[in-house]
Amino acid sequence: MTELRVGVIGGGQLARMMTPPSINLGLTLRVLAESEGSSASLATATVGDYNRPEVVLEFAKTVDVITFDHEHVPLEILEKLEESGVSVQPPSRALRFAQNKLEMRQRLAELGLPMPEWAKITEPSQLADFIYEHGGVAILKTPIGGYDGKGVRVVREAAAANDWFQNLADFGGALLVEEKVDFVRELAQLSARRPSGEFKAWPLVETIQANGVCSVVKSPAPNASASVMSATEDIARTIAIGLGVTGVMAVELFEARDGRILINELAMRPHNSGHFSIEGSITSQFEQHLRAVLDLPLGDTAPTAEHAVMVNLLGVDSENDFLPSYGIAMEEFPGAKIHTYGKGARAGRKMGHVTATSSDASSALATAEGAAAVLLRG
Amino acid sequence: MTELRVGVIGGGQLARMMTPPSINLGLTLRVLAESEGSSASLATATVGDYNRPEVVLEFAKTVDVITFDHEHVPLEILEKLEESGVSVQPPSRALRFAQNKLEMRQRLAELGLPMPEWAKITEPSQLADFIYEHGGVAILKTPIGGYDGKGVRVVREAAAANDWFQNLADFGGALLVEEKVDFVRELAQLSARRPSGEFKAWPLVETIQANGVCSVVKSPAPNASASVMSATEDIARTIAIGLGVTGVMAVELFEARDGRILINELAMRPHNSGHFSIEGSITSQFEQHLRAVLDLPLGDTAPTAEHAVMVNLLGVDSENDFLPSYGIAMEEFPGAKIHTYGKGARAGRKMGHVTATSSDASSALATAEGAAAVLLRG
Repeated sequence: MTELRVGVIGGGQLARMMTPPSINLGLTLRVLAESEGSSASLATATVGDYNRPEVVLEFAKTVDVITFDHEHVPLEILEKLEESGVSVQPPSRALRFAQNKLEMRQRLAELGLPMPEWAKITEPSQLADFIYEHGGVAILKTPIGGYDGKGVRVVREAAAANDWFQNLADFGGALLVEEKVDFVRELAQLSARRPSGEFKAWPLVETIQANGVCSVVKSPAPNASASVMSATEDIARTIAIGLGVTGVMAVELFEARDGRILINELAMRPHNSGHFSIEGSITSQFEQHLRAVLDLPLGDTAPTAEHAVMVNLLGVDSENDFLPSYGIAMEEFPGAKIHTYGKGARAGRKMGHVTATSSDASSALATAEGAAAVLLRG
Repeated sequence: MTELRVGVIGGGQLARMMTPPSINLGLTLRVLAESEGSSASLATATVGDYNRPEVVLEFAKTVDVITFDHEHVPLEILEKLEESGVSVQPPSRALRFAQNKLEMRQRLAELGLPMPEWAKITEPSQLADFIYEHGGVAILKTPIGGYDGKGVRVVREAAAANDWFQNLADFGGALLVEEKVDFVRELAQLSARRPSGEFKAWPLVETIQANGVCSVVKSPAPNASASVMSATEDIARTIAIGLGVTGVMAVELFEARDGRILINELAMRPHNSGHFSIEGSITSQFEQHLRAVLDLPLGDTAPTAEHAVMVNLLGVDSENDFLPSYGIAMEEFPGAKIHTYGKGARAGRKMGHVTATSSDASSALATAEGAAAVLLRG
């Protein structure tokens, strides 16, 4: 039997959500998971440490391409894989920018892309100057290791970052400071690119964050003009080509009060802002990622309904894993598509999401939020 | 962690296609497969013989409900499970009618439902009489053991069934003879019912058979009147209640030249005529089946697009498993949703299917048939 084999490093919910399209398409999905009982354990899972080159090299022998559930695999290991002839998608030359926010800012600046004002700093005095020049406030980020709001602080005085300056070596020797953008909302542009060049984008979405974590996604972004949607697609294409990104990429954006569209963050993998696409698009981000990393032609990204809304299910405590409330949620919201990730309950943990599609935006929102509220109530 | 555990007896493509919705919903799916490397081996699969009561009883201890990929589990075993307190859905009192076409005809007649004329026969002379009274031709069926055109013959003389009459005991002691309906097309009505009573139907579909095997399904059935669609939904509801069916059920129907709608066959499980629902409905037949057998509220069966078309991928030889043609099929038909079942290639085998959705019926058909043609060409 022919096999098309994708190896995913990381066994979280993103790897898990690659499983359904891999089953549909008859692909072989293998996962290198951190531990037993991972979210993606339904795929053929190997348990091992991705920081150990020999573990990753051995895993790579069992698949045709290596891709990722997260961006934490050391670059040296990825380079070693590539040197030994393994197809790594996205490649190390792209992933380096996802692993280091300072390198990302520098590269996007070279490409002339719109960003918040930013600076690389190594001294508290530089931070004080930046804050002074930007209205008394700034966003300070550790270039490496941050996600879901971790490694990011709003700072109004340089002293608020003393602990980071004292441990600069842990963050690559410098910090990234950025203008605190006065934004009216956040947006995300999802796209995919094949190694051989084909590029496709989904329509621009609006993302609503709560405590630094994605909470609600509306597709398409309400009242986004055709010119804005075309501009954000161009931004994604420029980044994908300019940084050599393959597979699915999410570009998180600010829509500033003055109308500017500014690049906030990049993710070189399926992304929370694209979960709506499982039901809301002809081709979901997870199917598209598998196709892209195998260098297969990309699928249609057209919407299946005029509107899709996704609401995250964040853990409320150590008890509620949502399943006991399925009956009430399904009874009250027969159109809600409920997803849970098979994770143990923990406050604040991304444990699932709900999506609803509709010809009516407010109806999609009411269904997704209504079902999520029932599940979260427990 | 809470678990909702469904056990499926049989490891074919129907069990396989239950896997994606079980992953999405965070359900635990366990499969009792006939052999290693089954189509559904991505679920947690046990290998064992479903004809051995101790194997099935042991399997049942690991799940909350037992359901089926096929209808071949001996009734005595199912009754034993039920006696020991296991939830079997559909229950043995319903499945008996799916296992024996004569009992099914008798029960549907008691319910006053529209069927081809039929008779239970045990002698060649009875067959000769039936043929004589029905224009010189009849359909002869073995009451047990038939599927996909097997166990069914068009007969014009009693002698054509001598081998079956000589082995009557193998078929339950009698044969079923039916009027050969002069039909303009075949239809299928898909529905689902929960043990606690809730019933939902999908829109009526047209099915096109080739050599006794489902080849193309069009949803909704072209030019079906509202009164026909309402009548077939009523038929499905009457059957589900009257026979005590739970889970998904497909009613295969003839649309006779004289306008009658007549019941051909029943399947008490997800069915080939419902594969379109994976992309074509808010709730697929596979998700609905899992919800129904767990007695969870049923999902919305509304279509995601005005039209959906499914084309089966039947094996052409022992070589072509379709994967080498993915590139061309995906390139030419970016909107086609390709499914393969991970089975070895064999002529005539159901190895996969392609679905396309569209606001335009002919466009959906062209996409699904076009992609299937590329894959079948190899």
